[in-house]
Amino acid sequence: MTLYVNLADLLGQRIENGFYRPGDRLPSVRALSLEHGVSLSTVQQAYRLLEDNGLAAPKPKSGYFVPVGRTAPALPAVGRPALRPVEISQWDQVLELIRVVPNKDVIQLGRGMPDITSPTLKPLLRSLATISRRQDMASLYYDNIYGTHGLREQIARLLLDSGCQLTTNDLVITTGCSEALSTSIRAICKPGDIVAVDSPSFHGVMQMLKGFGLKALEIPTDPITGISLEALELALEQWPIKAIQLTPNCNNPLGYIMPEAHKKALLTLAQRYDVAIIEDDVYGDLAYTYPRPRTIKSYDEDGRVLLCSSFSKTLAPGVRIGWVAPGRYLEQVLHMKYISTGCTATQPQLAIAEFLEEGHYEPHLRRMRGQYQRSRDQMTDWVMRYFPQGTRVSRPQGGFMLWIELPEDFDTLRLNRALLGQGIQVAGGSIFSAAGKYRNCLRMNYASKPTAEIENAVKTVGSTIARLLSETV
Amino acid sequence: MTLYVNLADLLGQRIENGFYRPGDRLPSVRALSLEHGVSLSTVQQAYRLLEDNGLAAPKPKSGYFVPVGRTAPALPAVGRPALRPVEISQWDQVLELIRVVPNKDVIQLGRGMPDITSPTLKPLLRSLATISRRQDMASLYYDNIYGTHGLREQIARLLLDSGCQLTTNDLVITTGCSEALSTSIRAICKPGDIVAVDSPSFHGVMQMLKGFGLKALEIPTDPITGISLEALELALEQWPIKAIQLTPNCNNPLGYIMPEAHKKALLTLAQRYDVAIIEDDVYGDLAYTYPRPRTIKSYDEDGRVLLCSSFSKTLAPGVRIGWVAPGRYLEQVLHMKYISTGCTATQPQLAIAEFLEEGHYEPHLRRMRGQYQRSRDQMTDWVMRYFPQGTRVSRPQGGFMLWIELPEDFDTLRLNRALLGQGIQVAGGSIFSAAGKYRNCLRMNYASKPTAEIENAVKTVGSTIARLLSETV
Repeated sequence: MTLYVNLADLLGQRIENGFYRPGDRLPSVRALSLEHGVSLSTVQQAYRLLEDNGLAAPKPKSGYFVPVGRTAPALPAVGRPALRPVEISQWDQVLELIRVVPNKDVIQLGRGMPDITSPTLKPLLRSLATISRRQDMASLYYDNIYGTHGLREQIARLLLDSGCQLTTNDLVITTGCSEALSTSIRAICKPGDIVAVDSPSFHGVMQMLKGFGLKALEIPTDPITGISLEALELALEQWPIKAIQLTPNCNNPLGYIMPEAHKKALLTLAQRYDVAIIEDDVYGDLAYTYPRPRTIKSYDEDGRVLLCSSFSKTLAPGVRIGWVAPGRYLEQVLHMKYISTGCTATQPQLAIAEFLEEGHYEPHLRRMRGQYQRSRDQMTDWVMRYFPQGTRVSRPQGGFMLWIELPEDFDTLRLNRALLGQGIQVAGGSIFSAAGKYRNCLRMNYASKPTAEIENAVKTVGSTIARLLSETV
Repeated sequence: MTLYVNLADLLGQRIENGFYRPGDRLPSVRALSLEHGVSLSTVQQAYRLLEDNGLAAPKPKSGYFVPVGRTAPALPAVGRPALRPVEISQWDQVLELIRVVPNKDVIQLGRGMPDITSPTLKPLLRSLATISRRQDMASLYYDNIYGTHGLREQIARLLLDSGCQLTTNDLVITTGCSEALSTSIRAICKPGDIVAVDSPSFHGVMQMLKGFGLKALEIPTDPITGISLEALELALEQWPIKAIQLTPNCNNPLGYIMPEAHKKALLTLAQRYDVAIIEDDVYGDLAYTYPRPRTIKSYDEDGRVLLCSSFSKTLAPGVRIGWVAPGRYLEQVLHMKYISTGCTATQPQLAIAEFLEEGHYEPHLRRMRGQYQRSRDQMTDWVMRYFPQGTRVSRPQGGFMLWIELPEDFDTLRLNRALLGQGIQVAGGSIFSAAGKYRNCLRMNYASKPTAEIENAVKTVGSTIARLLSETV
């Protein structure tokens, strides 16, 4: 990350955290230049970035201020999971979420679906069609177990943006990020092993740990800086942890981007205690800042980081194409992939490789990042307007998920049941915890462009929460 | 199965087994009618079927004879695996087989690839293309975890042909048969558990057992009637077996179809010892007899059979679409599928459903069955001509794989290494055994239409074997 982005990051976090309040004057360009030992123009670039993100407003001749109109909602509290390994539950709740067929009559704010209506995706559909029409029929064959060479080449090129210098031989194509994560976990862990996870954490991984007979050790996680390194170190000291699984970039569900210094410190911890890191970067390309954040993998020197990702959030989930860069665990991951699905489907690999090669990926990303950032602001406004006072809301730095915290004794399972009758689905918080915590939280998807219909749905969610809260009292 | 097919089966087996020798007169129509209590026309139909299969030749006014030209090669011997649970090895050899990229310069007789050059497959490519061109973009979304409703409807209809009466709710679409098998195994077994398997057996399943920390108990298997029920019963008596995994129809690699009575008896055994049956039917639709054989699942009344299959052998492997009918294990299989790949890709599901619905599947199957049966005869002839005397060869009743047995101390690992330099690849036998038996066997694919190039390859394999044999002596 360049100097000015780093600086903007830091200032942005202070503003988001309420260190500077709306209307406050921000430090002068000269003061920051001195404080951080950077040039005046670097500070100016940083301020311009903050301005773009709506976090700073210039006043002629008086410097930069926190915008007055900015009434940032309170952030969710840091979770307080039980600091011991637990077995995972909540499969029935996850099944309820994923059992639902996409349906025009239900507004699905619960699932992890990107917006796939953008015209910038059309070349992908075109490639899928063209490849099927070609007569060589290569698309009907198995390719080899690593995946097609062309796609691996394109992904290796993409990974440079997150600071990774990998070759095609370091990559294995998978059936979505799910398979990347599950093969990685199984490559490292045996039943009974303990995996440390951020908390809240992606429900898919929770269920993998359950399915493989593993235990999760949930680590308290800050909604701005990510997994607590102090708590993690304590846990590594106390328990025979085999791997750390986390989503440091555009975290699901909290939306933060872990600061670079934390990423490096985490890697150092992993080295000291000799554990593997399974890094989920599936939302990383959807960070709202440019250039996109680095991965922990980009600092990895001894191959202990298994980087997992896919095109499910950036392009389309239905194509089921992901990848893993498994470092020193390549052989084990290949074995686990072989016994999970054999090979990955050929035709979508060829189509995505063509889409990337023809240069359609970056313009698509630019468009989606802008759209998602605007949708985040709109969705946050609606939640603040329609949800009961005291609602806490995450401030995602990328992706398209909002994490919402309601009063402590609220039960989002009841909420979901009440909402289904009204054609709305949200994701209850308890599936994001191994031990079923966060029942008072929910995750909402803001990928679609804001419409009156979605606004009404948010309104309904808000009034249903209010009704349930009044019943509780 | 109808009466005449049953009868033809029985006679065919006696001929294949050498009970009747070339030139022998076969029993008269009248005698068989009396012996089996069936009508004269049933016997006549049976003889016509045998005639079609080259096992009987009519002589005007004197009845049916075993064709003189027919010099059926000796069948492989029944394997003698160690009758105790073993851990699985050979991953390095499997990796060698699947690491190879499809390549015009290498004649790959080793892999399980069907012929995908048939014009009867064109409608599938058309559907794949059309679905991508449509503007609703449904193909880019996740469907629900069961798979698309339309495809499950079509598969439920197909399954009637193998005697199964299932509904869409009994089916889960998977990423190839690999995922069907792996989710089934994991739905039932915990690490350390014992699974009984036919021997030789599909190397994919061997590696799954290895990957999940399970033990395999290899059961001796007859090249005509399949897994030995006596040996299996003994094993069930002695060991806490959790599941029986086998491929009763068009077995891979032996090619037999287990007689119906054996299938029923196997199910009864499974009921008595309360174990699950994981039935691989991936080659079942490619049986050379019509109608296709029934599955064990078709007799299943208490949901203990998990039927696994895919379109990888009948249509194309690269589309990665399979299914599982998990019976009473549905919930567990759904969980295992969710954590393995999430959902299955949407677009190929829609395309295959369209291909089936428009009636393209049956004509395609008819064509492929005929082609594979003719290729089997051609490949068998070549092996008998070019391989050393004493070579034993399977007599596949469906599919496109030949199992070849060489003298006991021959090593097909050395053979494969010697062949690779000559641009030929075969599958060494040891990967088909948990304990690495069958090193003196190999499996060859005869899916492609016979060409001079393939004949030359078989010739080269034969002469290389002869050379290695002479070096051994």
